[in-house]
Amino acid sequence: MLAAIEAGGTKFVCGIGDATGSRLTRTIPTRDPDSTLADVARFLAEAAAEHGAFTAIGIGSFGPLDLDRTSPTYGSIAATPKPGWAGTDMPGFLKARFGVPVAIDTDVNVAALAEARLSGVRRLAYVTVGTGIGVGFARNGETETGFGHAEAGHIPVRRHADHGIFAGTCPFHGDCLEGMASGPAIKAAWGHSLEGLPPDHPAWDVTATYLGQLCRTLILTTMPERIVLGGGVMAQERLLPLVREATEKQLNGYCGPWTHEAFTTRIHLPQSQEPPGLVGAYLLAATVADQ
Amino acid sequence: MLAAIEAGGTKFVCGIGDATGSRLTRTIPTRDPDSTLADVARFLAEAAAEHGAFTAIGIGSFGPLDLDRTSPTYGSIAATPKPGWAGTDMPGFLKARFGVPVAIDTDVNVAALAEARLSGVRRLAYVTVGTGIGVGFARNGETETGFGHAEAGHIPVRRHADHGIFAGTCPFHGDCLEGMASGPAIKAAWGHSLEGLPPDHPAWDVTATYLGQLCRTLILTTMPERIVLGGGVMAQERLLPLVREATEKQLNGYCGPWTHEAFTTRIHLPQSQEPPGLVGAYLLAATVADQ
Repeated sequence: MLAAIEAGGTKFVCGIGDATGSRLTRTIPTRDPDSTLADVARFLAEAAAEHGAFTAIGIGSFGPLDLDRTSPTYGSIAATPKPGWAGTDMPGFLKARFGVPVAIDTDVNVAALAEARLSGVRRLAYVTVGTGIGVGFARNGETETGFGHAEAGHIPVRRHADHGIFAGTCPFHGDCLEGMASGPAIKAAWGHSLEGLPPDHPAWDVTATYLGQLCRTLILTTMPERIVLGGGVMAQERLLPLVREATEKQLNGYCGPWTHEAFTTRIHLPQSQEPPGLVGAYLLAATVADQ
Repeated sequence: MLAAIEAGGTKFVCGIGDATGSRLTRTIPTRDPDSTLADVARFLAEAAAEHGAFTAIGIGSFGPLDLDRTSPTYGSIAATPKPGWAGTDMPGFLKARFGVPVAIDTDVNVAALAEARLSGVRRLAYVTVGTGIGVGFARNGETETGFGHAEAGHIPVRRHADHGIFAGTCPFHGDCLEGMASGPAIKAAWGHSLEGLPPDHPAWDVTATYLGQLCRTLILTTMPERIVLGGGVMAQERLLPLVREATEKQLNGYCGPWTHEAFTTRIHLPQSQEPPGLVGAYLLAATVADQ
């Protein structure tokens, strides 16, 4: 039995079980670190009492995270505008509390791990389009980090003419990808989420064009076999085919092995039954369970 | 003794020696594949007669290349507008001619390998800014490929206001990065290469801003520890500090472990004594020399 935590900015989804399914899950609203982690620990203790002990904990967390293994603050949350969370060492807290190995990575990296496992590809990019836009990578069954972890929500994008002079919502960059195509950006620009806008509203094409720029950039720089698009904004089913179309149109035939069919078979919604971040957190826990 | 070939669109640089230095090199103008490869083979035979036999050949080649090891055309040049070169199987030709193992990768991937070795980093992006713009990656001492190889010269960029309505020179995308900031793009937009333009000419800032968008995108998506900028356009020494500045300004503090100092220490010109593509081709040859 393993424990998994998908630590998000608005909620923590916790579970015990393994990557094939949870025995028990609980969703805990994100508040300050002390209250939130106390609730997480209480759930894990109760779940273990009911279903049996877990041997490791995996965490897929909002970022930025310090994932430099040589750093004294490895595993902690780095500078973040989220009040109270900067410097929080979730693995340290849980390890001390439960005495089992704890592994942590970004929410999008572990989601990439889960989707790569399900689809059997060696290299996968997982994109979440919601309150923010995040991208994680899995390669050969492991999550990818480098000098820091990916923050591909903040790439520059070419402005869509129908977006007029909309300034964008990113506090760092204004009109970067996240500032133009995240859930809050869509609401700020058009007064509604996509859900509330008719199919012929320009917001659909504008959003798909920006997400197409992201997919184009990922294909040209990181060469994934599959791009999975998750998050609240992608829950609008009309969006996926528009993003595929925008990506293919922008690449205009210059895309190596990405044939016409590839855009349909390789740009997809998540396949996981449970949230991919939770499934990935179990997979991450499994990597340290034998230590 | 190893043999190395840096196969470029205008010239082939060939050498025998190893990654610490060539014993003998020759530059052969690129024409049709038959004439070009016949000259390459003649040089290698002569060089071996004079300096001793080589045990493997490494090739860093212009692309696109088929680098899918499961493909029947692995190692061949894929669809290219370069007359006669599509389908050319350089490794096959040289293996048949010399009876030694031959390895091939993109020119920019092997250059990344060479620079990563020299600077001792685990993850490096090598950018060439010349006739085209290409990006290669090395990770943990190996070149990186995925579903195809990187083609990051073709990422979308945000137009610089001083570029007016310049359409860009990329036959596929018009105003992608390569269409706006490659050598031919600079000449087409301003009538001169950077070399011929005064320091206060807008071309400097325009070019640096586009290359800054590339560095920003690479940092946010591929997390290199070091970005090496090579190629003819970067030979203008004034450009490097402008690119560093543009990258840092655009990221605006949102860049994980990239502190202010990092932009100077981690964005650099090539350090290799010989062309990094040639050095990398020796390193690639070494990986198959024992087979």
